[in-house]
Order: sequence, then structure tokens, then C-alpha cells
Amino acid sequence: MSRGRKPVKDKILFLINEPQIDHFQLKAILMLTNTADIAEAIGEMKKNKKVQLFRLLPKSMASDVFSFLDPDEQELITENLADNEIGQIINSLFADDAADFIEEMPANVVKRVLKTATPEKRAAINQLLQYPEDSAGSIMTTEYVDLLEDETVSEAFNEIRSTGVNKETIYTCYVIRRDRLLVGTVSVKTLLFSEQNEHIGNIMDTQFIYANTGDDQETIADKFKKYGLLSMPVVDNEKRLVGIITIDDIVQVIEEENTEDFEIMHALAPSEEPYFKTSILRLARNRFLWLLILMLSATITGIIITGFEEAIMTLPVLVAFIPMLMDTGGNAGAQSSILIIRGMAIGEIELKDTLLVLWKEIRVAALCGLILCLVNFVRIYLFNGRNLILATSVTIALFGTIFLAKTTGCLLPLIAKKIKIDPAIMASPLITTIVDAASLIIYFSIAKLFFNI
Amino acid sequence: MSRGRKPVKDKILFLINEPQIDHFQLKAILMLTNTADIAEAIGEMKKNKKVQLFRLLPKSMASDVFSFLDPDEQELITENLADNEIGQIINSLFADDAADFIEEMPANVVKRVLKTATPEKRAAINQLLQYPEDSAGSIMTTEYVDLLEDETVSEAFNEIRSTGVNKETIYTCYVIRRDRLLVGTVSVKTLLFSEQNEHIGNIMDTQFIYANTGDDQETIADKFKKYGLLSMPVVDNEKRLVGIITIDDIVQVIEEENTEDFEIMHALAPSEEPYFKTSILRLARNRFLWLLILMLSATITGIIITGFEEAIMTLPVLVAFIPMLMDTGGNAGAQSSILIIRGMAIGEIELKDTLLVLWKEIRVAALCGLILCLVNFVRIYLFNGRNLILATSVTIALFGTIFLAKTTGCLLPLIAKKIKIDPAIMASPLITTIVDAASLIIYFSIAKLFFNI
Repeated sequence: MSRGRKPVKDKILFLINEPQIDHFQLKAILMLTNTADIAEAIGEMKKNKKVQLFRLLPKSMASDVFSFLDPDEQELITENLADNEIGQIINSLFADDAADFIEEMPANVVKRVLKTATPEKRAAINQLLQYPEDSAGSIMTTEYVDLLEDETVSEAFNEIRSTGVNKETIYTCYVIRRDRLLVGTVSVKTLLFSEQNEHIGNIMDTQFIYANTGDDQETIADKFKKYGLLSMPVVDNEKRLVGIITIDDIVQVIEEENTEDFEIMHALAPSEEPYFKTSILRLARNRFLWLLILMLSATITGIIITGFEEAIMTLPVLVAFIPMLMDTGGNAGAQSSILIIRGMAIGEIELKDTLLVLWKEIRVAALCGLILCLVNFVRIYLFNGRNLILATSVTIALFGTIFLAKTTGCLLPLIAKKIKIDPAIMASPLITTIVDAASLIIYFSIAKLFFNI
Repeated sequence: MSRGRKPVKDKILFLINEPQIDHFQLKAILMLTNTADIAEAIGEMKKNKKVQLFRLLPKSMASDVFSFLDPDEQELITENLADNEIGQIINSLFADDAADFIEEMPANVVKRVLKTATPEKRAAINQLLQYPEDSAGSIMTTEYVDLLEDETVSEAFNEIRSTGVNKETIYTCYVIRRDRLLVGTVSVKTLLFSEQNEHIGNIMDTQFIYANTGDDQETIADKFKKYGLLSMPVVDNEKRLVGIITIDDIVQVIEEENTEDFEIMHALAPSEEPYFKTSILRLARNRFLWLLILMLSATITGIIITGFEEAIMTLPVLVAFIPMLMDTGGNAGAQSSILIIRGMAIGEIELKDTLLVLWKEIRVAALCGLILCLVNFVRIYLFNGRNLILATSVTIALFGTIFLAKTTGCLLPLIAKKIKIDPAIMASPLITTIVDAASLIIYFSIAKLFFNI
């Protein structure tokens, strides 16, 4: 923490707590104090003093200080100000700061604040509040250091020193025109290695990666990974800087997206609530629907089996191989689907690779299938009364099952991607259900043929 | 997302494929293109073009582009460059990137590359290569800014300016004693906000998080997430500073660990090779062993069924419900296991929570089971000739299966953690196999009892 600040804050605290407040001296000090420091001082005052001090602020600083306050302090101050005072603050706040503030307020405060805002500001705030969940707009922070092209390095350092105190990251600064159009970025590293009188416009990087407010957080996380970024500016449709996203938020996004994939792949409705914070009822609800769908679709497999009742009565040993066929099919399909789903998630596999993937999976299926079938054939032949026809029909069915499982397993996620649904939905449970039905048809048909049932 | 980029990559590809290459225009475009995008463009070129384009890069960009290339492209380019060109690249690479590159190269390339490196770089690379895979030592870089306690802020800035140019991160500096013992950290932010003649020892943070060279990368990633770190110092057993880990490497670690979990959970031997770079033989080998183990263990289920052959011959309709029981058991088990495995991975669930988890899963199982059983009972009763005994026995077996699947599904990963094996191994395939056998025993036993077979 900076040393220079504490005395100023302490002085403000001392002056505001005097029985007879020296308004002149206090105002003079406030004028020279960083708004973030004032907000910090307010944070340490008693309730009635907070409002009192806020009223002493010059109009030009009030909204800036306000934006640094905690939500409960913002609420307290809003409740104690007149409508025109609130209007002045809300209209000088950056729209995104105003939106962050409003998001935290109870409904009655929101109503009063929006009433006092100019129509333009009200429109901007309402727009910010509309950023969909998981969009760049919803995860960005509005705290960053912005510089102007025609500033010098030395001016930039002064600005970082005076405004950067509470910024989430000062290591990359964003260069804007006076209309907030984003034109470049410059790192503190570059500033440190440049001459003091160099203009920012000459040393800034104009080849920066940026996001639009509406971009999906998963896409943004991918860009962070691809370009090895620590932060990314977010612009609106006019390319005006509205916020930045920092890598610590991206680490969270990556983990969230992975958890969601794990859940969807295992027949769970995705949930962002921690396990122990989720009620039994909620947990059951998240699991119930997929279980029901999959249970009912497994009924189809049951109906197929019923169609082969005669074969089962004639040769009940056939039933003994159903679990082996079903499980192997399920596992073989899951292996393929997971590699494809994961490959698409980390950008290794794309839709245009579909035929390549299919051809690769066909050969892997053939190879895996052949070895498993060999083991299986020998085992059945040796341990099931050297019944050559039984061993052959189970083995052929097994090969068909593996082949079917691997091709279905790799194609379904790609098809999902094509028709723009989440490929993770096509993971093992669904593939298992499909492969089950198909492989049992193959199995019983071959058995009927071979045994002449 | 940035608009200008895709056309740039396409433009590079277009220009390099012209019969008469416009070197001037191409160089001009390369100068303005992000190095990660240039690497991506190189990835999509024909072999001879890759080398051609790489040679056109300005020296200042070459090593950066090189670090983004795939290992086989790095090999190709290394083979086609002169020794002094290789030397320039290897000496401008960060030591950790250089070590990563060398690890992937065949022996002859390694020899040639190390020959061209400066003695210091060679020493740094060799040191990094000695740490076990996935350890802190293997992912750290040896390039960082270290300061001494008795230096002043102004001396620190001079040191950053004179040595920090090529450091991967200068935003946190590490404070050491003369024997390299790590005693604190200080951010450039703190330096910027301090008086020029202040001593580093007075402003450094002594409450820093650090890693030992042998620490597992997964544990380190967890610490980055927990403390919201951007970098972390790595020390040897005597607590002497030997390197730092930066968050961009941690993002990679998180993705690697997630991919590994996905693979292990789906009966795949984990592999770090990209899908398209893995040979058919290798893919088959990664899948074969688990398929075989699970296929053979499914045989046990088959043997169990054989034991109930009499029941099947008497009442072949019983077979029709096997797939539904098996699939529902598998899915219900997978749901529980994935929540527990994931919960442990992100630190939400610990071993001491075992009883809490079990109690929660029992209640969820009861709730899910009751609803599914109700649906199931009605369905069987209506569509299977209003056979009350059949509907009842299948329903009881279903409830038992769900109960068993959910308890096994939550307990096995916890047991795995307890006996220190990877909980991910206990995911659906293994649980399915166990639950299959148990649920069929329940099913046929109940059926025999109810139908007096």
C-alpha cells in the first residue's frame, strides 16, 4: 500500500470528527485528495458523518467518489440526498459504474435514481443492465487506466499514480480518443522503458485483441488462452472502451465452463451452486429429467428384446452376453465422444474435420474391435462348452457394437455442433442408449440366423 | 472479438502462396500482425512455405512466433535454419519456452540447438530439464527480476530498466538476501506509489505464497485460483529462489488437468498429444486396456444372469427390463460420481465430508428413485398386461439400483482419494460395472421370490 495516502485519509477522518468542523480546511484538503482515498475515508466513518462529508465534496468529484463507495454506503447516501443531487451524481457517473451501482440497489432506490437520470443516461444504464449472463459485458470490470494519445509518458505515470490506486490492474493502460474510441494499449513495462517526454500515441500497441460486450465468455476465455493475455479491453458497438476483463475472472470462467461440460456429459442439468449449498430437492431436480428421459428411451431397447423372446426361450444363454455387449458399446462410444467433445472445446477439432475424424475412428474401431473380439471369441469358446456358433455370433455382434459405438460416438458431437447445440449433450448417456438398441438388434438377428431359430 | 484479424491471416496465406511473392508487402503485414496469429497462419501452410515465411519475420518477432508453433513445425524450421539463426531464436526465447521446445525435439536437433545457445541459456535450460514432469520446476521460468532488501525504490527501477527488458513478468519483483534466500515480494505498483529513496525491505510483502520445485502443478494451480495470483515464486529446499511460475502457464495447467480428468473418467489412458497428431495405433492402445478390463468384468454380470437361466426360461419378459435397469443404474451412478469428483477437484468437497455426502446422496437417491419408480410402475402396469407382480418386482429392483448406484457413485471417488489414487478413475465405467452386477442380482432374486420360480 502506498504510504503517502494514509496521512491524508487520517487527516480527513480527524477533521470530520471534530465537534466544530472546519469546513474551509476540510474542503481544501478534499480538493487535493484522490477520490478513491476519499471513498476509503468515508468507508471508515460513522453513518451520519458519511453523508455529511459527501455533501462537502465539490460537484466535480462527488460522482467519482460515489463510484468508489460500497453498495450499502451508496444506498445510505442516495437515501439522504435530494432528487436534484442524485441526478447530478448519476448523470456524471460512467454509465457502467451507474449500472453496477443500480444492480446492487433495492427496487425503491432504483426507481428514484432512474427518475433523476437524463433520458440518455437512463437509456445507457438500462442497456448495460441488459448484458446477458455469461457475456463480456457481464464479466467485465469498469476499473482500468485510460490514457490519451497525446499525453506523454511522464503525464501517464502521474495519471497512474493519481487515479490508479484502486484500479484492478494498472499494468496495461488503454489509450482512447476523447470520444472514448479505443485506439491502443500500452503496458506499464513499455512506459518504464520509454523516455519521459515520449507521446503515448507513439509507443502504444495498436494490434490489440479486444472483445465486444455481447461476446460469450467461453469465446473470450479461448482468446485469452490463444494469445496468452492477462487482460482484454471490452468495447461497445461503436468501438468505445466500456470495460476490461482480467485473467483472474477468466480462470473462473474456464473452471465454470469445464464444470458445466462435466455435468452435461453425465446427464446432469448444469448448476453453478456449490454441492453443499444445493438443496436435496434441487439436486434431485437437476438429475431427475435426464434420468427419466434415458430410462424411457431404454424401454425401446426392452421392446426390441421382447421381439426376440422366442430366441431367448430357445437359447437362454444368449441373455448372458447382453451386459457385456451393452457395457462395451457404452464405453467404446464414450471414449470417442469425449475425445471429440474435448478436442472441439480446446479448439483442436473443427467441423470441417468431420470426415477426417470419422476415418480415424473407423480405423481405431477396427483395431480395438479386432483385439477385443479375439479375446472374447477365445473366452466364449473355452468357457461356454466349445460352442463355435455361439462364440462366432457373440463376437460378430461385439465387433458391430464397437464399430457402431465409435462412429456414433464421434459423429453425434459433430452433428450437435453443426446444428448449434452443445456437443457435451451428446456424451455417453445418450450414445449408450442409441448404441444399446442397435447392438442388441445386430446381436439377436445374427444369433437367430446362425442358430436357425 | 477483434475484427481485423481473420482477413490478416488469410492475407498472409494468400501472399505466401503467390507464384511471385511480394516480400515488401508481406513483411509490412507481418510487422502489424499478432505473433500468435502468424503462428496460426504458418500452421496452415505447406511445408516449404512455413520455412519461407519464418525467414521473412523481423528478428524481434521470430522467437515469439517460434514459441507459438507446434513441435513438428519447430523441428522443421530448426532443421532449415543456419546455426547462427537458431542461436538467435533460442537465446531470445524465455528459458521455460526453450526447455519446452527442447523436450519435444529428437536428440540430433537438441544437440544442435544447445550448441548454439549461450552458456547461461544452456545452463538455465539444462536446469529446467532436470525437474520431473508436471512439477513446479518443470513449468517455472528462471527469468525474473530479483531485488535486494537494502536497495532503494529508485535503484529498483534502474535495475528493472536495465535487466527487465526480457523478463517474462516484471510486475512482481522478488526480494532475496545475498544467499538467494527469498524474503519478500514487491509489485511494480507498490514501487510506483513509494518514495524514490524508500528501502525495498520496508515496503516488501513478506506474506507471500510460494511453491517448492517438487510441488505438483495441480496443487499450484489450486493456489493460484484460491489467492487470485498472477505469479508465484518457486524455491528449492533451502528456500532459495530458483524461478517463478506465471498465470499464463497455469491456465494451460488447468486445461491439461481437466482434459486428463475427462479422459480418465471415460475409460481412456490420459494423453497430452493432440487428437490429429496421435497415431491410430496409439489411440487404440490408449483405449484398449480399459475396454478389455471392463469387458471382462462385465462377464461377471453375464455369469450372474446364467445363474438365473431357469427364471428367464420361465418368464422371458424379465429380460426386457435388463437394459433399462442397467442404463438407469449407470446414469444415476455417473451423476453422483461426477459431482463428487468435480467437487473434490475444485476444493468444495473434502474427505472429512464423506458422511455428509453419503447422507445427502441417500436422500437424493430416495427422491429421484421414488419419482422414477412411480413412472416406471405405471408404465409397466399399463403396457405389460396389467401384471401387478411384474410391475412391482421391476420397480423394487429399479429403486434398489438407483439407491446402490448413487451410494456407490459418491463413495468410490472418496475411497479412491482416501487410498491416494486418482478419484477420476472411479467414474462411470467402473461404477456401472459394479452396479450392473449388483442390480441384476437384486432384480432376479426379487422376481424369483415374487413369481415363485
